Amino acid sequence: MELEDIKSPADIKGLSIEELEHIAEQMRQAVLNRTSQIGGHVGPNLGSVETIIAMHYVFDAPKDRLVYDVSHQAFPHKMLTGRVDGYLYRQDFPKVGEYTSPVESPEYDIFWAGHTSPSLSLCVGLVKARQLKGEKYNVVALIGDGALSGGEAFEGLDAGGALNENFICILNDNQMSIAEDHGGMYKHLQHLRETNGTAADNLFKAFNWDYVYVAEGNNVAKLIEALQKVKDTQRPVVVHVNTQKGEGYTPAEEYREAFHYRDPFDIATGELLIVNPGENSTSVLKNFINRSAQKYPTFLAISSATPDSFGLNAKEREILGKHYIDVGIAEQTGVSVMAGAARDGAKVVYSVVGTFLQRAYDQLLEDWAMDPSPALMVVAETGIAANKDQTHLGFWDIPMISSIPDILYLAPANLEEFDAMLEWGLSQDRFKVAVRQAVYSIEHADYEVEKDYSDINRFKVIKRGSKVALIGAGDFLIKARQTAELLKDKGIEATVINPLFISGVDKDLLASISKDHTLVATIEDGSIEGGFGERVATVASPLGLKTLVFGVEKKFVDRFNLKELETENNLRPEQIADIILANL
Amino acid sequence: MELEDIKSPADIKGLSIEELEHIAEQMRQAVLNRTSQIGGHVGPNLGSVETIIAMHYVFDAPKDRLVYDVSHQAFPHKMLTGRVDGYLYRQDFPKVGEYTSPVESPEYDIFWAGHTSPSLSLCVGLVKARQLKGEKYNVVALIGDGALSGGEAFEGLDAGGALNENFICILNDNQMSIAEDHGGMYKHLQHLRETNGTAADNLFKAFNWDYVYVAEGNNVAKLIEALQKVKDTQRPVVVHVNTQKGEGYTPAEEYREAFHYRDPFDIATGELLIVNPGENSTSVLKNFINRSAQKYPTFLAISSATPDSFGLNAKEREILGKHYIDVGIAEQTGVSVMAGAARDGAKVVYSVVGTFLQRAYDQLLEDWAMDPSPALMVVAETGIAANKDQTHLGFWDIPMISSIPDILYLAPANLEEFDAMLEWGLSQDRFKVAVRQAVYSIEHADYEVEKDYSDINRFKVIKRGSKVALIGAGDFLIKARQTAELLKDKGIEATVINPLFISGVDKDLLASISKDHTLVATIEDGSIEGGFGERVATVASPLGLKTLVFGVEKKFVDRFNLKELETENNLRPEQIADIILANL
Repeated sequence: MELEDIKSPADIKGLSIEELEHIAEQMRQAVLNRTSQIGGHVGPNLGSVETIIAMHYVFDAPKDRLVYDVSHQAFPHKMLTGRVDGYLYRQDFPKVGEYTSPVESPEYDIFWAGHTSPSLSLCVGLVKARQLKGEKYNVVALIGDGALSGGEAFEGLDAGGALNENFICILNDNQMSIAEDHGGMYKHLQHLRETNGTAADNLFKAFNWDYVYVAEGNNVAKLIEALQKVKDTQRPVVVHVNTQKGEGYTPAEEYREAFHYRDPFDIATGELLIVNPGENSTSVLKNFINRSAQKYPTFLAISSATPDSFGLNAKEREILGKHYIDVGIAEQTGVSVMAGAARDGAKVVYSVVGTFLQRAYDQLLEDWAMDPSPALMVVAETGIAANKDQTHLGFWDIPMISSIPDILYLAPANLEEFDAMLEWGLSQDRFKVAVRQAVYSIEHADYEVEKDYSDINRFKVIKRGSKVALIGAGDFLIKARQTAELLKDKGIEATVINPLFISGVDKDLLASISKDHTLVATIEDGSIEGGFGERVATVASPLGLKTLVFGVEKKFVDRFNLKELETENNLRPEQIADIILANL
Repeated sequence: MELEDIKSPADIKGLSIEELEHIAEQMRQAVLNRTSQIGGHVGPNLGSVETIIAMHYVFDAPKDRLVYDVSHQAFPHKMLTGRVDGYLYRQDFPKVGEYTSPVESPEYDIFWAGHTSPSLSLCVGLVKARQLKGEKYNVVALIGDGALSGGEAFEGLDAGGALNENFICILNDNQMSIAEDHGGMYKHLQHLRETNGTAADNLFKAFNWDYVYVAEGNNVAKLIEALQKVKDTQRPVVVHVNTQKGEGYTPAEEYREAFHYRDPFDIATGELLIVNPGENSTSVLKNFINRSAQKYPTFLAISSATPDSFGLNAKEREILGKHYIDVGIAEQTGVSVMAGAARDGAKVVYSVVGTFLQRAYDQLLEDWAMDPSPALMVVAETGIAANKDQTHLGFWDIPMISSIPDILYLAPANLEEFDAMLEWGLSQDRFKVAVRQAVYSIEHADYEVEKDYSDINRFKVIKRGSKVALIGAGDFLIKARQTAELLKDKGIEATVINPLFISGVDKDLLASISKDHTLVATIEDGSIEGGFGERVATVASPLGLKTLVFGVEKKFVDRFNLKELETENNLRPEQIADIILANL
């Protein structure tokens, strides 16, 4: 049996251990084949090949339910469930996504999984449904040691431990989150590994789960043996599997953080095919962090397991020492630590990926906005150009953050403005400041950027015209400017505005332009509904200004083409200009 | 020393155990004095009197930082920090709020605390700030066993366990959440209590914390002894304190759920002063739950530790049996269990308090909205009349939920519509349906309510007029109708619309009314920014309709007067009518 011939999990059922090991080897090649060409999660997938082969060998999907937390390890699963071509053949790569998706495979992919930590709680739901239907099958979750640090994973352990039902949690312990693990629990996992699972104070037993340890987590025979023992159990059980992240590919074993997710690389050396060390918002942020650590004795940079959003490598983090804390994949805690440290006078900056910040909406509102805790939060990977996976869209941060009182959300239009907003945000001690780090355009300022943003909700007029006002927020200011050029060709000298603030509206400015303008168009790099433009429209309407709001429709899209998405949403300057002209 | 003479924690420092016990007894009377008259958290405060006396006796606030998780037990703390009058004298009750508040006491109340589970993570921030400042004092969190089930508490244990620093977590284990505890962890806490803290598999040690057990958690001498031992420790330590919820007041000891929070009651008997058993939205929901449990074999009702939002008492929950699950104070898990059970065909309804649902924003988006999991969610205690504490405002649910694709958010205007929306939401299998349970008005329908809401975003015209259209969402439809009456007196026959849907806009209807209307006013029971009306304004503006959006300002308000809040926000029908007339 060769990997390319596998159509469904049934195809591996009769194989010998040697044949399974042969498949495992081919899977590793397939992971490298795909990721080296189009990028992807290298290390997690290489490390879990044997675990997932054993899962499909022992359990009977789709009858048995296999749930992948965050699904960073979903490639082997996809290869065994009819999607192997997506790893073998260049032309088939686009047919298969990075994460599990019920659209891609309604039969084998039970949930969309792109955010960490919900798998156990989702499985509690599956267990309850099974109980209510009176059926019998296994419910199995695969979760990584990194994902275990997210609060919902513990909630799931707690809720699962209260069920006297079949429920199998496979803990894929590769001793890594995206970067190294952080948290008191990881010393305990280490003790468990060092004692072949016999260490005292077993975390999982404390949650009322049974516990099994598998020392050789890249040994398919051992894994099959362990899973066969727990199959059809009538108690919740954790199978703790010790694996090697990046197993079988030396560069990935050696540089585990760099190979967690890797852009296209040369398989022979592991080197990136395209290295882009130029100035960008991440380099601006990184310089700001290092500068601030020198400047403020109480400086604290916080990460929730995504240090790359600071652009800081392991060595640079070490240099920061006590000025840096990684709280694990735990955005709730990231926000609360920011609020707590700021409350007692530390100079705090928290950098967080926007889509993951969704986990901390309550903490933003209850712990940060409400408390006397001036601090700076950088919201990374926002907007339509950030990430094209449905689970990671950068569309929702403006509605989320801008609906919370007392957080200023700033959107820089260029690198210099980004830098200035960071500087001001950290230096001041009156406001809670969030700065949006978007990736659509990387511009340099052609005007003198403001140093002080304490005159809140004061929009900046880039060019004063009449009749039409174009408000281009953040990295979409460029679209407002391009639209203005097009309107100029039609004889309209439009006003161009950089709002700076996307959490409020400059009412005075709108009142002032209502005298010689009839139409306002807002253009933002995010969802229309709940967003910035709608707030402008609400203020502008009673002033007699017709408002057109440009942004993206409130809709899930997956692995979209950026140009097509822009066209579908009327976001090309020509479209914007045409619609404005039709509305005059 | 008498309780009324205590001005600051220094006043109890020199007292004997007997004197402290005398103070404790007076504190209990003061808790009952206040709560029996204006309502409040009875059981948690009675149970933690000795713990908090010991905390203030041993530690030196404000230098030592005392942080109260959710602050259901904050009354004794407030009594010892200059606010005792708020418990002794009727006229001073309003000066003191239910929760800790840095506005009320910038010195002693470090954080606003009304939501459970962030205390340990906030303290990680305090510990980091202390480290960076190079200072020495104790950082102490008090957290209940119920609050421990929220994911962020475990994140905080994990992050705290990684710090080799002074950090004291006092676990107030009264063996109750609001109702009974649920989760595998609680068997473990029981084992710890039964073995005087020596049971195997210590959860806290697994997170790398030291551990101390105090069996007699209502014995001030024992507590002082235990806390003196851990004071100035240089390691994180959990002090597990076994307390009696409601200690010292027989009705509260006996009916622990009913006395968690109690409306005004007779101290002698514990009976409520006002019993209101009439028909309301909770009784409608409760009848719907019991009906549905009979109707659907796979029916599942989910609660995240607030069974009272279903109106179900302990006996009724027992009758539901396997059709009911309480996941602990864990809304993230509540949403994921809903999604998981629905994914496998169960008929699921999750009832959740809107302000607590804030903790599950990411799960709503990533686990529910995206997945093929049709289910019904009831969002309770929403709108301006729901709760007047700043930490529990019902203002934010519309922006939060309505910004997520593929969740229909329905707002019933009366009890019959609420019932019909629940029935439809559970019976259908195409949509994810959320129904807003608001409390501003309890009306009966004077029109035939729809049975089917699958024609999504189709608004209902209650009365067709011209010139002005009034869209009153949910329980604010009444305001639209009252405004229409006032406009009628001015010769305007306004159109009155019940939108039914607050997560989308009826574009056809707006286009149609744009022919003979010039102005639209939306009126909603929540925040303007990010809300429903702004979406209407955005659609209406290009149609040439001037739109006025009525709702509340994006602003924190605490313990407000409802009438004053309405007036400040132009929400009285006379104000709405006047503003409309001024804008015609």
